[in-house]
Amino acid sequence: MENFVFYNPTKLVFGKNTVEQIGEYLKKDKIKKVLLLAGGGSIKKNGVYEKVVRSLIENSIEKVEVWGVRANPVVSKVREAIDVARKEKVDAILAVGGGSVIDSGKAVAAGVMYEGDVWDFYQGKATPKDALPLYTILTLSATGTEMNGGTVVTNEELLEKFSFWSIHTFPKVSIVDPEVQYSLPPHQTVNGAVDAISHVMEYYFDGAKRTDLIDRVDESIILTLMETTEALLNDPKDYDARANFALSTTLALNGISGLGHRGGDWSSHAIEHALSALNPEVAHGAGLAVVFPAWMKYVYKANPTKFRRFGRTIFRLKNSTPTQAIDALKRWYKKIGAPTTLKELGFKREDIETLTEIAAKTVPMGKLVKLEKEDIRKILEIAYEEE
Amino acid sequence: MENFVFYNPTKLVFGKNTVEQIGEYLKKDKIKKVLLLAGGGSIKKNGVYEKVVRSLIENSIEKVEVWGVRANPVVSKVREAIDVARKEKVDAILAVGGGSVIDSGKAVAAGVMYEGDVWDFYQGKATPKDALPLYTILTLSATGTEMNGGTVVTNEELLEKFSFWSIHTFPKVSIVDPEVQYSLPPHQTVNGAVDAISHVMEYYFDGAKRTDLIDRVDESIILTLMETTEALLNDPKDYDARANFALSTTLALNGISGLGHRGGDWSSHAIEHALSALNPEVAHGAGLAVVFPAWMKYVYKANPTKFRRFGRTIFRLKNSTPTQAIDALKRWYKKIGAPTTLKELGFKREDIETLTEIAAKTVPMGKLVKLEKEDIRKILEIAYEEE
Repeated sequence: MENFVFYNPTKLVFGKNTVEQIGEYLKKDKIKKVLLLAGGGSIKKNGVYEKVVRSLIENSIEKVEVWGVRANPVVSKVREAIDVARKEKVDAILAVGGGSVIDSGKAVAAGVMYEGDVWDFYQGKATPKDALPLYTILTLSATGTEMNGGTVVTNEELLEKFSFWSIHTFPKVSIVDPEVQYSLPPHQTVNGAVDAISHVMEYYFDGAKRTDLIDRVDESIILTLMETTEALLNDPKDYDARANFALSTTLALNGISGLGHRGGDWSSHAIEHALSALNPEVAHGAGLAVVFPAWMKYVYKANPTKFRRFGRTIFRLKNSTPTQAIDALKRWYKKIGAPTTLKELGFKREDIETLTEIAAKTVPMGKLVKLEKEDIRKILEIAYEEE
Repeated sequence: MENFVFYNPTKLVFGKNTVEQIGEYLKKDKIKKVLLLAGGGSIKKNGVYEKVVRSLIENSIEKVEVWGVRANPVVSKVREAIDVARKEKVDAILAVGGGSVIDSGKAVAAGVMYEGDVWDFYQGKATPKDALPLYTILTLSATGTEMNGGTVVTNEELLEKFSFWSIHTFPKVSIVDPEVQYSLPPHQTVNGAVDAISHVMEYYFDGAKRTDLIDRVDESIILTLMETTEALLNDPKDYDARANFALSTTLALNGISGLGHRGGDWSSHAIEHALSALNPEVAHGAGLAVVFPAWMKYVYKANPTKFRRFGRTIFRLKNSTPTQAIDALKRWYKKIGAPTTLKELGFKREDIETLTEIAAKTVPMGKLVKLEKEDIRKILEIAYEEE
């Protein structure tokens, strides 16, 4: 087990009828005016927006709104929101939506307090020294951003999808009401499941040794995500399945799943970011369903024991080979309707070269195996089509 | 799954060579003078005291020392330390030791800021409005106090062992260096294991429904504690076993193990507190090894499915009855050398009456089954000797 420091100051407010508590939490913290950041309008359909507005009014909290954060959020929208936040002198950011809205909210919160351009944080040219307090209401459980300091944003001009992490961008309060997610289309639940399972696997397969407890915890999260995803595909309004699914996605990336690990491998994420940088229509979860198993096939020889354990604990395979374990994962992804090849995502063989170029901007990458540009190309080739 | 709010602002610094970092953490927080609270002197034998003193000197932090916190800590020592903290005008409490020292540290931290007597908090007559910042260095993994706001102290005059919990008494930083625990006598590791397993079981068996993820996480903690306890009884210097054991005890009571639950049952703990209130020589873990299985035998009919699941997941029993699952737990306690009857703890049959009187001060108690005084008597009778 590796040394670690765990610190997660986010207050997680979880359960039924919690959205309407947002005003009280803001008032308790003496917030007078917020920038409400949102996506394309789904929160008007599912009733969340109305509850938020009523709660703000009841607690005498002013708001200014910025709409239009899209999936695979872009830095131009972040810059727009930073301008509004400054002009309107808000005390806090209130991000209401899925991972894209919250990740953008983190960038806005830190960007407002920084003189330079917010993209500097993503390029590692600067680190946040401070941020406006961030409050979030999560409407799509997937990325785990509601309880960590990380943010991923795309620079659409540079074709870069980069991330940064800061202790200043942990949400102060995050509200997760599983009922809000009853109306999600099935593919969003599937993408969320793949995303969260991938987060856990980034740690699980990072090559750390004797992480006895956290291996079991990670397997617990993956098994629960699999079980609840299948339950939700049958009945999207199964409250307890939604709740366990939501909690699993939060714990998948709030630090717990990686305690005593080597920080996670993150190669699959870095390669996937190239996919959605090139084609913003590719959902992050869908991209990961394609890239992660390909990465596994390329690297498993560095730790075959762990891949066999994965087959045994997750898929109940007895005496399986690593390849059988990886194939079982792909089969399950197919079963829930996730893509498993680049071809299915609409990429052509010629795109492999461009994707390699984009992903190679951050080489060397990875912990279990250190990957260079040539390795990325080979992984993308494995990912292209079914053998 | 039940609604919940999770908030845990403790920074957990975990691993090898972390004790010597204490001075830096204090300095970063602008602490100039601490009250160093400690137990009977074991930290002088295992080298921890020397490392702490050196680190304080290197970071120009003054200290005043209060020694003599004992197992099953008493309120008179807490009052003594509060007086010293006030007279010496310290900025923070630094508790160096096991659960007793840290629990006392919490009482001191809150007590210094309160005009009345600190026992008021334990009796529920007052709640802390503030506290001095508390820093801890854990030398005995067991109670989980290093990462929560709870404290249990005995009032030796009133024969009361009570607890309180406050958001103000979460440690600011807790350092856990598993190597420090190499020199612990085996029975302390055993008591720590039973204590932490009992914490998890208080939630696991509190009657909450559809806690799918956390059931698995709780089983992960219990299984890891069992595995690492056996490993440590063979080799007390197995670092990874120590580390996984230590992390398991922390996660057993930092809030994670009870997410979506009903707050825990806590009857077994309340009854055990009577044991150590009457006889302070009874270690908390040893008391729990006796009381918890007796409680289980008394209440299992309220949720037989969960007890059968416990037998299946923890002891790999196929188609077991609840009683067989409970017996398997008792057998394992015996195997590691924990007592399983009141008789073994030195109590006489006549003591059952006194113990019932003491424990009944806090009836009704429990969540799975609400217990009154008569129920407590019956549980103590089950606990008295082997059937």
